[in-house]
Amino acid sequence: LVVLAGGVGAARFLEGLAGVVPAAQITVVGNTADDAEIHGLHISPDLDTVTYTLAGRANPETGWGLNNDTFHCLEALSLYDQDWFRLGDHDLATHIYRSALLRGGVPLTEITARIARAHGVEAAILPMSDDRVRTFVDTPAGELDFQTYFARRKAQDPVRGVRFEGAATARPGPSVVHAISCADAVLLAPSNPIISIGPILAVPAIHEALHETPATVLAVSPIVAGRALKGPTVRMMEGLGHQPTCVGVARIYESFCDLFVIDEQDWATTSDIEALGLEAMVTNTVMNDLASKQALARFCLEGLLR
Amino acid sequence: LVVLAGGVGAARFLEGLAGVVPAAQITVVGNTADDAEIHGLHISPDLDTVTYTLAGRANPETGWGLNNDTFHCLEALSLYDQDWFRLGDHDLATHIYRSALLRGGVPLTEITARIARAHGVEAAILPMSDDRVRTFVDTPAGELDFQTYFARRKAQDPVRGVRFEGAATARPGPSVVHAISCADAVLLAPSNPIISIGPILAVPAIHEALHETPATVLAVSPIVAGRALKGPTVRMMEGLGHQPTCVGVARIYESFCDLFVIDEQDWATTSDIEALGLEAMVTNTVMNDLASKQALARFCLEGLLR
Repeated sequence: LVVLAGGVGAARFLEGLAGVVPAAQITVVGNTADDAEIHGLHISPDLDTVTYTLAGRANPETGWGLNNDTFHCLEALSLYDQDWFRLGDHDLATHIYRSALLRGGVPLTEITARIARAHGVEAAILPMSDDRVRTFVDTPAGELDFQTYFARRKAQDPVRGVRFEGAATARPGPSVVHAISCADAVLLAPSNPIISIGPILAVPAIHEALHETPATVLAVSPIVAGRALKGPTVRMMEGLGHQPTCVGVARIYESFCDLFVIDEQDWATTSDIEALGLEAMVTNTVMNDLASKQALARFCLEGLLR
Repeated sequence: LVVLAGGVGAARFLEGLAGVVPAAQITVVGNTADDAEIHGLHISPDLDTVTYTLAGRANPETGWGLNNDTFHCLEALSLYDQDWFRLGDHDLATHIYRSALLRGGVPLTEITARIARAHGVEAAILPMSDDRVRTFVDTPAGELDFQTYFARRKAQDPVRGVRFEGAATARPGPSVVHAISCADAVLLAPSNPIISIGPILAVPAIHEALHETPATVLAVSPIVAGRALKGPTVRMMEGLGHQPTCVGVARIYESFCDLFVIDEQDWATTSDIEALGLEAMVTNTVMNDLASKQALARFCLEGLLR
């Protein structure tokens, strides 16, 4: 099973999936376009969120960062006015380790595997690319790099455009295309289709592999009843002229997607989705606890096996 | 007052000095040849020890690091087998901040001043050079960079030689030569003469300034009764063929030093030191508490005023 994944929403979905199939059968292709250099440290928020969640160590309140982490270094960074990005002490070790290896020329794919291994994660977590791809968000305040838009300015700026710098020339991570081509199924986690899944699709060879894979492609809508499970998905889709509903998400994926999972609250949109040529599958997609995460995963797998 | 300084021994001496003269009248020229890149972070152990001590925030047990610091990030780094260098969470903020600024092209002198200011330190703390100078220690196990010799291998290897890479071509920090030339007095703190004061003297323009300054130059012996106040000074001097006593230290400094402060326990060496052309001053130089630190500083100042 290959899962294209953003951050928190995807991690919740993956947690459920890893509860119903052996984790070693899961390959995650993770978004790296949110990666940022903060204080010279290379932060990979989406990869870390997935890793920590699959390790059972994610902070259950925020969804990102490590559980029971402390913020002593951040307190001291505030002495230098450098504390706008929340970095826990344990979390920091990951960034320090990754940054040092990257500077030593180790590819992000290899580093991500080492971090996952150190945390006892059995799923394969593959960065979408070892080449640098960066999300920039065009707002009335100017074009902002993603973490300035998201973490520093708290996603409050209206979004007029999104650009994935470097995506057009980025090569996919070493085994990403192979994984998609040989997968039994490809799942798109319920992540922001614009800025979480979008950058993955913007890597040309991945986009092509998704179109050509014989595997069934299933996507889970991150929008339920016009609201996003997490983050600025709805306002961002509106700002970019997409319908901010599950149907709008289906339109983004329609060219390569076979099955589209929507929430019960959106059952009335079934015909709109089927009109796009996708098979709609309706279930509860709101993941409040481990049982609902696993139920959603099981529902997806059953749909794929039909 | 200009003080040439290494790490812990120098910091203790400076703490006393800052108690008897206004800190703003003190300019510290600090050793940077112990600096290391650890996990891609630029660590300046001696500058930090001086800064933290003058800020009243040094760990009183070790002499280095911050008081009441925690080691949560280090615990997490152990997950990646990256925990040989002791880095506290608060301390780490200094290294992260410095490393990010260095990568942005800010000179170490400016960064060191910002860090000192953030910690409320009024003394000027000047790196000996903004150019990279690195201490290498020749041992039977091969040539080791300083922190590998000192922190990783705990200074256990016999020392056959010491080399300060980059020193011969290093320019002194922007106001170092001016400070020495215009000083009322230049003090050499009781630091290791080989690897703490040695690299400062190895910068040609600083060496020259010390010989030419009209200021009285006073040095405090870091060796008392054949034992070092701190660190591997004695074994290192032996290994390099120096007499491992205060007289051996006096010989290293004799060409530019006027006054040489030795401990009461070494009073019998007075004539040996005077024979080198230095004026010997005898007092208690063992700094157990703030009172003894301040007494030593006061003794030095009285000697300079005579």
